[in-house]
Amino acid sequence: MTLLLLLLLVVSFSATGNWAQESQVWMWVCQEGKCVKQPLDRDMTPQGLQACKLVCDTYSTLWPRPRGKVELGRILAPINYNSITITGTSGDHRALSKNVGQFFNIAADTFSNQLTTLFKKREQRPSDGKSLQVRVTIRDSYTRALKIGSDESYELYISEADTEIQASIISTEFFGARHGLETLHQLITFDDVTDSLVIMRDVNITDSPAFPFRSLVLDTARNYFSVASIKRTIDGMAASKLNTFHWHLTDSHSFPFQSQTYPQLSLYGAYTPQQIYTPQDILSVVEYARARGIRVVPEFDAPAHVGEGWQWAGPNVTVCVNAQPWINYCVEPPCGQLNPTNDTVYEILGGIYHDMFALFEPDIFHMGGDEVNFGCWRSSPEIVNWMTSHHLGQTDDDYLQLWDIFQKRAYTKVVEANGGKEIPIVLWTSHLTAQGTVDKYLDNKTYIIQIWTKGSDKVIAELINKGFRVIFSNYDALYFDCGFGAWISEGNNWCSPYIGWQKVYMNNPYTMLTDLGVDISPGTEARELVLGAEAALWSEQVDESSVDGRFWPRAAAMAERLWSNPDEGWQKAEYRMLAHRERLVRQGIQAEALEPQWCYQNEGSCPE
Amino acid sequence: MTLLLLLLLVVSFSATGNWAQESQVWMWVCQEGKCVKQPLDRDMTPQGLQACKLVCDTYSTLWPRPRGKVELGRILAPINYNSITITGTSGDHRALSKNVGQFFNIAADTFSNQLTTLFKKREQRPSDGKSLQVRVTIRDSYTRALKIGSDESYELYISEADTEIQASIISTEFFGARHGLETLHQLITFDDVTDSLVIMRDVNITDSPAFPFRSLVLDTARNYFSVASIKRTIDGMAASKLNTFHWHLTDSHSFPFQSQTYPQLSLYGAYTPQQIYTPQDILSVVEYARARGIRVVPEFDAPAHVGEGWQWAGPNVTVCVNAQPWINYCVEPPCGQLNPTNDTVYEILGGIYHDMFALFEPDIFHMGGDEVNFGCWRSSPEIVNWMTSHHLGQTDDDYLQLWDIFQKRAYTKVVEANGGKEIPIVLWTSHLTAQGTVDKYLDNKTYIIQIWTKGSDKVIAELINKGFRVIFSNYDALYFDCGFGAWISEGNNWCSPYIGWQKVYMNNPYTMLTDLGVDISPGTEARELVLGAEAALWSEQVDESSVDGRFWPRAAAMAERLWSNPDEGWQKAEYRMLAHRERLVRQGIQAEALEPQWCYQNEGSCPE
Repeated sequence: MTLLLLLLLVVSFSATGNWAQESQVWMWVCQEGKCVKQPLDRDMTPQGLQACKLVCDTYSTLWPRPRGKVELGRILAPINYNSITITGTSGDHRALSKNVGQFFNIAADTFSNQLTTLFKKREQRPSDGKSLQVRVTIRDSYTRALKIGSDESYELYISEADTEIQASIISTEFFGARHGLETLHQLITFDDVTDSLVIMRDVNITDSPAFPFRSLVLDTARNYFSVASIKRTIDGMAASKLNTFHWHLTDSHSFPFQSQTYPQLSLYGAYTPQQIYTPQDILSVVEYARARGIRVVPEFDAPAHVGEGWQWAGPNVTVCVNAQPWINYCVEPPCGQLNPTNDTVYEILGGIYHDMFALFEPDIFHMGGDEVNFGCWRSSPEIVNWMTSHHLGQTDDDYLQLWDIFQKRAYTKVVEANGGKEIPIVLWTSHLTAQGTVDKYLDNKTYIIQIWTKGSDKVIAELINKGFRVIFSNYDALYFDCGFGAWISEGNNWCSPYIGWQKVYMNNPYTMLTDLGVDISPGTEARELVLGAEAALWSEQVDESSVDGRFWPRAAAMAERLWSNPDEGWQKAEYRMLAHRERLVRQGIQAEALEPQWCYQNEGSCPE
Repeated sequence: MTLLLLLLLVVSFSATGNWAQESQVWMWVCQEGKCVKQPLDRDMTPQGLQACKLVCDTYSTLWPRPRGKVELGRILAPINYNSITITGTSGDHRALSKNVGQFFNIAADTFSNQLTTLFKKREQRPSDGKSLQVRVTIRDSYTRALKIGSDESYELYISEADTEIQASIISTEFFGARHGLETLHQLITFDDVTDSLVIMRDVNITDSPAFPFRSLVLDTARNYFSVASIKRTIDGMAASKLNTFHWHLTDSHSFPFQSQTYPQLSLYGAYTPQQIYTPQDILSVVEYARARGIRVVPEFDAPAHVGEGWQWAGPNVTVCVNAQPWINYCVEPPCGQLNPTNDTVYEILGGIYHDMFALFEPDIFHMGGDEVNFGCWRSSPEIVNWMTSHHLGQTDDDYLQLWDIFQKRAYTKVVEANGGKEIPIVLWTSHLTAQGTVDKYLDNKTYIIQIWTKGSDKVIAELINKGFRVIFSNYDALYFDCGFGAWISEGNNWCSPYIGWQKVYMNNPYTMLTDLGVDISPGTEARELVLGAEAALWSEQVDESSVDGRFWPRAAAMAERLWSNPDEGWQKAEYRMLAHRERLVRQGIQAEALEPQWCYQNEGSCPE
C-alpha cells in the first residue's frame, strides 16, 4: 500500500516539468552550515546540491578561501547564460594595453568556458534571469610577467541592480584581476533542481595570498610529458591560484629540451625524436602560463643528474655515466655527473643557459645542485689528477670545494645568459647547504634554498637564521610520487606511504619553523624569508597517463595552505575540497576522487 | 675538436633519409636476451627498440606469455599496412554463423585498430613489404557466450610464402580465435629506424589458459563510472586475455542500476538522474564484453550493503540505514541492511533479479553476502521481535540462522529469475563461510566462494577441503584500491600500502594452497576447485578519472599469472610487462607508468 502511494507520487513529479525535474526526487537544505538531503518539496523553494553548497558553507565553495574580508550575501540570483559581459579597463578608465589586453581576453574566455562546464547539455543553459555585467579594473595595465614582489591582490564586489547583476573586480596588476575572475566563477553554479544559473549576491571580498611562491615542479626527464598535459597542469594551477610552474626539464635519464645552440643534446638525449620540447613548445607553455598568472621557472640540474644527451660531447665532459653498480655513484640509475674540471662543460652550459633564458625570460632560475655523489667524481682519473695538481685532496671537504668551483663558474655563465644581470638562483638542499656549511659557499642574496628533506630537519632553522630565503618541498608532505610500488626492487618506493590531501593541507611552513624554534612572528625578517612551498612530482613512475591524478586535488590542498594559510584544520575545508575537486574534473583535469560521492551529498555523515 | 667532428657526423645523418631517420641516432641490438642501445650504424641492418624487443626476449613482447608450445622464428618480415586481410571460416570451411560472424568482425576490427595505433602519423604507414593473409578457423561457429567449461585455446602459425605472409589461427570456440588475434597483433610492430611494419616469421604457438576464471570487479556504487570507462576497462581486459568482468552494481551508497520492475530504486538511489545504468547501457556493455570473449557477472550484494534507493519501499524493508555511530552497524558509512523478516524484501529482490537476468543472461550470478553486521539487525525492534516469535535468541549463532534463512529465500528468487534453473552463485567470504560453518549453511554444488581475506587465511584450505570452488581476491595482493589516503580519517586507507605489480604477479593460487597444506597436484580434485582469481577495485576513492591507472597495468600482471602461471618470478617478465603497458597506453588506456622510460630503453641497467 505504501509502495503504491509513493509510486503515484513519483508519477506526479513526471507530470510537472522538464527533463531535469522529471527525475529529481531530492533537494538539499542548508542546516547549521551543512547541506542536508531531503525529499524534494516544490512548495519549499527547493535547491539542488550545488546551489545549496554555494550558500551554505562560511566560505561558499571557494578554493582557496579568501584571506581578507569575506562578506557573502548567501542569496542566489538567477542569471541569463546568454547575457554575460566582461569588460576590462585600466586604472585611468582607458583600454588595457595590448599585452595585458591579450591576457585579459584569455582570462575572460577561461571564465566563460568554466561557466559552460556547469552544463551537461547545451539545452540546459538558461536564458531567463538577469544579465551579468562583469567590470574589471587593472590599475597597472602594462605588467604581464609575474615576478617576486608582484601584487596578486584583488577586490571583488557583486551586487544586484534593477535589471542586472553587477560584478566588479579591482586589482593593481593583471594577476589579481585573474584571481578575481577565478573567485567570481566559483560563486556561480547551475542549480539542477530549478534549472537556473545562479550567482551569489551581495559579495564583498578583499583577497591576497599569504605566501608569494606557490609552486609545482614537474620532472619531464624520468618520463616525458606532452605539452598538452603540461598545459592541463597549468590549468589546474590557475584554477587553484598557484603561481609558479617549476620545470625540471632534464636529468640523467633523458634530455628532452631542444637547445638551439647544441641541438645534439636532445638529438642524443631525448627518449625518441618525438619526445622533445622544441623552442616553439617552450614559448607556447611559457606564454600559456603567463596568461594564467603563472611564472615558469626552468631548472637545469647540475653538476649531478646529467648523462643522456651528452654522449656527443667527448669522453671527459661527463663522468660515471650509467656506471655500475650504480649504488656507488648515484641514488638511482642511470648515474652521471658533469666534470667540473673540464672547460667544455662550461662552454656547453653557457649555451644551454643562453637558450633557456631566451625562451623562458625567467625572474628566478633553478640550478638544481642536488645529490652530487663524490664517489662518481672520485671514479674519474682526470678529476683525481686535477684535484692533485690543484693541491686538493680526496676528502669530502675537498670535493665540496670542487663543487663550489663548479657552482661559481656555472653561475657566471647564468649571469652572462641573463645579459650580465644577477638573478636569484634556487638550489636544492644538499651537502653544499648542510648545517655549518651553507654560508661558507653560498651567498644569501643570490641563493634561495629549496628544502626537500623532512619538515623537521634542523637545517631549515639554520638556513633561516643565516638569512637564506627558503621554499618548502619537504618530502614527507610534498613529494607526490611517494607511496607507489618500487621500481628499484619489490615492495614500495622509497618515500612511501602515499601522502593524503589532509597531510598536504596541514603542511604549514610557519608551524614547521616554530617547531624548530624559529620566531616567525609578523614583522620578523625570518617570516619574510619564507617564500612559500612547492609540491614535487618526480616522474620515475608517472607520465602523462596519470599526471593529473598525482597532482590533483592534492596540489589544491597545498594551494589553500599557501594562499589562505588557515588556522583551522583540514576538517573545516573538507566539503569545499570535494567541491573544488569536482570543479577541476569539470574543467578536464582527471583529479583523483577522495571519497564516495555519497559523502559529498551527505555532509557530516562521513567521519572526519 | 671532438665536438666539431661529431657535429659533422650528425649533419651527415640528416642528409641520409626521411623524417624519422633524420633524428634517429640510436639503434638496439639483441645481446643475451636483452636489447642494448648503440649508436646507429646503417651498415649493420639496424633495428629500433620495438623491433629489437619483438625478437629478443624468449617470449617476444607477448603478454600474457603463451603456456603451451612457443616456437618463434626471431626473424622479422616487413608487411604492407595496406594489404592485410583477415578471413574467418567455420570448421567445415563454411561461413561463420551470423552471431559469431558479428563478433569475429569486431575482433578483426580491433586487430586492425591495434595495428593503426603503432603509427604516430598517418604518413608512417608503410605500403611496401609483403601482404599479410590472416585465416581464422573456428570449429564451433555458434557459441558466442563464455561459460564455465568454455574452450579458450587456440593455435597460431605464421609462415612466409613467396608474395605474402600467412598467419593461421585455429580454435574450437570464438574465444580462442579472439585470443589468437590478440597474440598475432602482439607479434607485429612498427620499426621506427627502418620505417617498416614488421611481423615475426616462423611462429608456432599452442596456447590455453591455466585458470578458467580471470576476472576484475568494479564497484560502480561508491562512485559512478561512465559506460565509456567501463568499456575501456573491458578493452584492457581483452588485450590481456582476462575473461570475466564482475560488476558490483549497487551498494549502500548508491543504486545506479535502473530496474524496469522497480524504477524507483535508481530514481531514489542514483547519485544524480544522469548517473544511472539504463537497460540499454547494460545491454551494450554485456554485448561489448561478449564480443571480446568476456562474460559479465552481475552482483546484487545483499543482505548488507544496501541503503540508498530503498527509501520508497517502506520503513521496515531496510534497517539501520545511515545509522550513527556507523561503527556499531557497518564497516563504513553509510550503513544499511535488508530486513530478512520482511516479505516485501523478497518481492523486490525478485524484481531486481528478474531484471538483471533478462539483461545479463549470466552463467554465474554473484549474490554478495559480505560484511553482514548483526548489530544492525539487532538494532531493529521488528527483527528482534521476529527472532523471539520464531524461537531464536540474540546470539551471533541465532543471527547466522537468520542470514541463512535470507540466503535460501533469496536464492529461490534467483532461480525463479533464471527460468527455474539452478545457477552457480558466488558469495564473498564472511561469517557464513567461516571455519567450521561453511558447509552447515551452503551447498558446494551451488556456491562458489570468493576469498577476500589474506592469502594465508586457513579458511581457504577448509573451503577446498570441503569441496567448494574458490576464486582468489585475497586483499593483500588483489585489492587495487589499497595504499591511498584515508577518507574515514587522516593517514592511509585500511589496506595500505599500495600493491605493486610484482606482488600481484607473484600471487599464485596454487602456491598459497600448497603453503596452507593442500595438495593441488595435477589431477587432484583440489586443483580443479581453484577457478582462478579476480582483482578488485572498490571505489570509495576512485572514479572514472583514475580507473585506468588503478587497474592497469597491475591487472595485466594478474592476467599473466592466471593465463600462463609461470614458474619464473616477475623479474623475467619485467621488460615484457613494460612493453605491454606501452601497448595498453597506445590503445587508449591510461595505464600507470612503472619505471622511467630509460629502463625500457636500457634493459638490464635498472635493478631487478
